[in-house]
Amino acid sequence: VARSTESLLDSFRVGDRVALSRIITMVENDHPDSAMILDALYPMTGKALRVGITGPPGAGKSTLVEQLAFQMRQSSLKVGIVAVDPTSPFSGGALLGDRVRMSRVSLDEGVFIRSMASRGSGGGVAWKTLEVCEVLDAFGTDRIIVETVGVGQSELEVADATHSTVVVLVPESGDGVQAMKAGLMEIGDIFVINKSDRESAELARMALESALELKQTDNGWRPPVVSTIALEGKGVDELFHKIEERLALLVSSGRIEMRRRECVRSKIAGILKTRILEREWRRGQLPQLIEEETTKVLRGASTPYKSAEILLGRLEAPSDR
Amino acid sequence: VARSTESLLDSFRVGDRVALSRIITMVENDHPDSAMILDALYPMTGKALRVGITGPPGAGKSTLVEQLAFQMRQSSLKVGIVAVDPTSPFSGGALLGDRVRMSRVSLDEGVFIRSMASRGSGGGVAWKTLEVCEVLDAFGTDRIIVETVGVGQSELEVADATHSTVVVLVPESGDGVQAMKAGLMEIGDIFVINKSDRESAELARMALESALELKQTDNGWRPPVVSTIALEGKGVDELFHKIEERLALLVSSGRIEMRRRECVRSKIAGILKTRILEREWRRGQLPQLIEEETTKVLRGASTPYKSAEILLGRLEAPSDR
Repeated sequence: VARSTESLLDSFRVGDRVALSRIITMVENDHPDSAMILDALYPMTGKALRVGITGPPGAGKSTLVEQLAFQMRQSSLKVGIVAVDPTSPFSGGALLGDRVRMSRVSLDEGVFIRSMASRGSGGGVAWKTLEVCEVLDAFGTDRIIVETVGVGQSELEVADATHSTVVVLVPESGDGVQAMKAGLMEIGDIFVINKSDRESAELARMALESALELKQTDNGWRPPVVSTIALEGKGVDELFHKIEERLALLVSSGRIEMRRRECVRSKIAGILKTRILEREWRRGQLPQLIEEETTKVLRGASTPYKSAEILLGRLEAPSDR
Repeated sequence: VARSTESLLDSFRVGDRVALSRIITMVENDHPDSAMILDALYPMTGKALRVGITGPPGAGKSTLVEQLAFQMRQSSLKVGIVAVDPTSPFSGGALLGDRVRMSRVSLDEGVFIRSMASRGSGGGVAWKTLEVCEVLDAFGTDRIIVETVGVGQSELEVADATHSTVVVLVPESGDGVQAMKAGLMEIGDIFVINKSDRESAELARMALESALELKQTDNGWRPPVVSTIALEGKGVDELFHKIEERLALLVSSGRIEMRRRECVRSKIAGILKTRILEREWRRGQLPQLIEEETTKVLRGASTPYKSAEILLGRLEAPSDR
């Protein structure tokens, strides 16, 4: 472990935001010290509750996230924001200066905004998001808002990484249908109709509510529908209270604790898998052997599965141990 | 290997579509025999060229796919269609009867339509898509069209699994910007402005073309922009010819062959990784041990990384071997 990492951790522990930012970058980039860092921070985690905000592009998620963060700050909660939405102004996806809008919360010392590079991370976005949340948790945040765009598989996985999921829709007729298609109805435990000053808002709300009546209640929780106008901050206090209500229920029912256990279990298993593969890859000098087998397959002298079995057999050989 | 699987393979080899459909389902669901099946089919693969069609929801991708398949059939090409777009009528995402539209190609004996369940497959959509493409390839298709919705990480990975990617946009002003945000500009090697009878079509086309001028040519290929009206079949022949031109270039430059080598390599490595982990998990009786370590971590007596190291150490012990 580099000495600089030790001093970085010291700065982190006394609340240095630059240290926080650097550590997140290291974790995101799989820096060699990141395992040691996460391990050192682990005992400081377990307090932050994670809320996912998802919905189709253009639903106003980022504005809502900003307003929600502001609302949480009014209750003296420290807030972390993680944007894994490639179209979010938080994640640098904005090309048209949307980022300027965020200035109100981004200048607040009690708010920590972080974007995730969701590209090229080889399907590990959910895992990385959880790790970044852990760092924010260790830093002392009370709530972490994870913003994702509600289309596609990795986004659903990220939603799995949060405790409660808010699905944001707009009144346009097709939106509810799209939401159902994309599986958003299943993952949401709070629904928002944003831009609810639009004409068809009341109709959209009724349609959504009747669709939600078909959903089974979860421990007595039936997903509420909140109408908001995020740009004007309207309805955001109600949304905040619904979120807090939901989180309180999850805590009192033991669900949060159960989730933490699952999370630790899959973390140990995940680290172990990576380490096993690293070890075997090194022992077996597999890259060269795989290259040779690839050539055999392309010549028609083997198939991928046969080649994999051959290599697995070589790893068994006691002479390699 | 079950006897039924053997006879299923026999039926597949003589062109039985029901056998094709069953085999794809087995591969999709990780049936115990799926490795053996893919292995048996492997020597029959290598002919089909894969074209990705991606773009935002509502751009008219499914209609374009249908028209394109029809066009390919006119050239006597056998066509496979794989829909991994959750909003696609092919993938059963349509709630409003869109599926009726597809009847023209779906009744054609030379077209094979398959949807992928992109949910709950644990991030392995791209891998599974490739496997389904392999099965279609072995069945004798010449072209495979993979339809994905152009938002989100897993969709970009699926695009990586094809040889050429067509990005479909509509003339609406914001669309090009969204495309840039979502990284579509980078992955496309052919662009389509669909619904080009709309007012702003010519403007959108010019904006797109000037944006594309900034892109580096790839082996002399500069991504063309094709205007289409998919509903009326207009421009689809031009799109088809551009795709064929692109594929021919990729074949002659040796790129397709290189991709096949990469694919075999990562296939061997992927299978090997899975098999190594299965073996170690069995040997080490890891599930119980992980449970014990999880409890230790939750009591504060360990951390996930320390626990993983402890378990890795146990796997080293010669008594386990």
